[in-house]
Amino acid sequence: MENETPGPISIDGLNTSAWGPRNMLEDLVAGGMTAINATIAIWDDFESAIDTISDWYGIFEQNSDLVMPARTVDDIHEARSSGRCGIIFGWQNATPIGNDLRRIKLFHELGVRIIQVTYNERNLLGNGCYELHDDGLSKFGRAAVAEMNRVGVLIDLSHVGDRTTLDTIEHSEMPVAITHANARSQDDHSRNKTDEAIRLLVEKGGVIGSNGFPMFFPKGFESTLDDYLDRIEYLVQMVGPDHVALGSDMCQEQPRTWFEWLFSTQGTIPASQVADTPEPYVHLDGFASSAEFQNIGEGLEKRGYSQGDVEKIMGGNWLRLFGEVWK
Amino acid sequence: MENETPGPISIDGLNTSAWGPRNMLEDLVAGGMTAINATIAIWDDFESAIDTISDWYGIFEQNSDLVMPARTVDDIHEARSSGRCGIIFGWQNATPIGNDLRRIKLFHELGVRIIQVTYNERNLLGNGCYELHDDGLSKFGRAAVAEMNRVGVLIDLSHVGDRTTLDTIEHSEMPVAITHANARSQDDHSRNKTDEAIRLLVEKGGVIGSNGFPMFFPKGFESTLDDYLDRIEYLVQMVGPDHVALGSDMCQEQPRTWFEWLFSTQGTIPASQVADTPEPYVHLDGFASSAEFQNIGEGLEKRGYSQGDVEKIMGGNWLRLFGEVWK
Repeated sequence: MENETPGPISIDGLNTSAWGPRNMLEDLVAGGMTAINATIAIWDDFESAIDTISDWYGIFEQNSDLVMPARTVDDIHEARSSGRCGIIFGWQNATPIGNDLRRIKLFHELGVRIIQVTYNERNLLGNGCYELHDDGLSKFGRAAVAEMNRVGVLIDLSHVGDRTTLDTIEHSEMPVAITHANARSQDDHSRNKTDEAIRLLVEKGGVIGSNGFPMFFPKGFESTLDDYLDRIEYLVQMVGPDHVALGSDMCQEQPRTWFEWLFSTQGTIPASQVADTPEPYVHLDGFASSAEFQNIGEGLEKRGYSQGDVEKIMGGNWLRLFGEVWK
Repeated sequence: MENETPGPISIDGLNTSAWGPRNMLEDLVAGGMTAINATIAIWDDFESAIDTISDWYGIFEQNSDLVMPARTVDDIHEARSSGRCGIIFGWQNATPIGNDLRRIKLFHELGVRIIQVTYNERNLLGNGCYELHDDGLSKFGRAAVAEMNRVGVLIDLSHVGDRTTLDTIEHSEMPVAITHANARSQDDHSRNKTDEAIRLLVEKGGVIGSNGFPMFFPKGFESTLDDYLDRIEYLVQMVGPDHVALGSDMCQEQPRTWFEWLFSTQGTIPASQVADTPEPYVHLDGFASSAEFQNIGEGLEKRGYSQGDVEKIMGGNWLRLFGEVWK
């Protein structure tokens, strides 16, 4: 590959960093990121989700040399050819639509392209992975899945409960994503997905982004890039290289108060036991920020993966899925 | 009883009429109503619930000869002695609190005294009686029950799903209400409650208000006061006269569009099959409006009920429960 040609397609299936400061966006470009699914809503309601989008419009204006909105596959190609990172607006919770499905189209107009059914707990659509129980998609949830299919929003199931996950895969007419999770049969954690769910998702054309969040790894914050590569490899061995991608779950420069909010009940009731996250937060040794994203591909190559498979995992599989769902 | 003394305590556990016009309030006084649980939220969010309260403040100012706010048992006694009807603010859905339990105290300050866990379908607390499934109270739901207990808001379970109903009775430290439902063992409809739920509620000191909504009676809109008396009697035979009261479910002057909204999914998605409600809406022959409320007590007396039991059913049981829960 010549220096003049753009780097490989490199897509992060989930990055939930504290956006705003220019140095974070510089990291994206330094890491050769073609596009990222940037989390712009978690425990949000309609208005706060709207305000975050307005914030991002400002970020785009002030940093148009580094980032650009990615609403289509063409946008992602344009970001690549211009040496910038495409920002895909993604929600980790459907709460901003409230009880009004018409808002899916409305937020799609504003650029939202990925919506997770629910985050950790319950919402009007279904149950999250940390809820007391999970009885699957509600009436409203089934209608929301159909509307996301119709409008062309990619459905994410990473933090979704087991029954709601299976229900969504079954009811969705389009392939769906697990943007950032690993296999529970490898690491027994409720944030990881069952083999049944992963296989069913793949059968229907979906993609799973292996999660690089150190807290779900056996060695926690002592984990390294090699531990991440082990998770990626496990998934590839399970479902092959055409359905595995990456979702770093990067939380760059997020303060501890943010993690307390994350782990709360419904964004408002403090958790009885708050996860012991370091401040400043640390990522994996060898993949400490988006600037080191290419280390993943190099690591996979060292483990014997073909260049073709590495390209799929590093971004090609996400790009294919986006193209199918976004239309 | 002398003419100068106030009439018997007469409390309607649920009235969801189209409030505003003065003639509706005159009906309440004509019927000798001491107090009603007036529905002021169904599919509402925070702002619409706030606005409806503002509407009511206006109604109180303009009709202070007919109605007054009922926030305490003392208020209800005052309404009775002044020949007015006390208006208890009640919600049929907890949605206006959003994800913020502090709003329970806030709305209590504004006068809300009765909150139903959820209406027909799913919300953040639990599942309704028309949902696809019911897995019980969520984490947030358990915390909401505790907060309603603490603040002194009566919990209503009429439109709540079976599992969430039992969960709430079990988790609530205060007695709870079914303000307007009958026994499913008498009329097999998902809006009626199981014997298990009714008995458990009564064991813990709760009260069930027999529902006068004609659509859930076998003869539908051909039903009469006698059919209603049969439902009341069935409940009294099941759990005795100390735990049965009345919840007329009066919908005076509600247009058909309102019923379509009621029976929708989450207040926004039209039901595939809309109930065939007459317009103008009709109530029971013999109990056609609140103005005929005393016909119920007279009917029970004709069936041989003692004056003491009639007084309990007509309002005494509600008053006792309000006193225990509102503190």
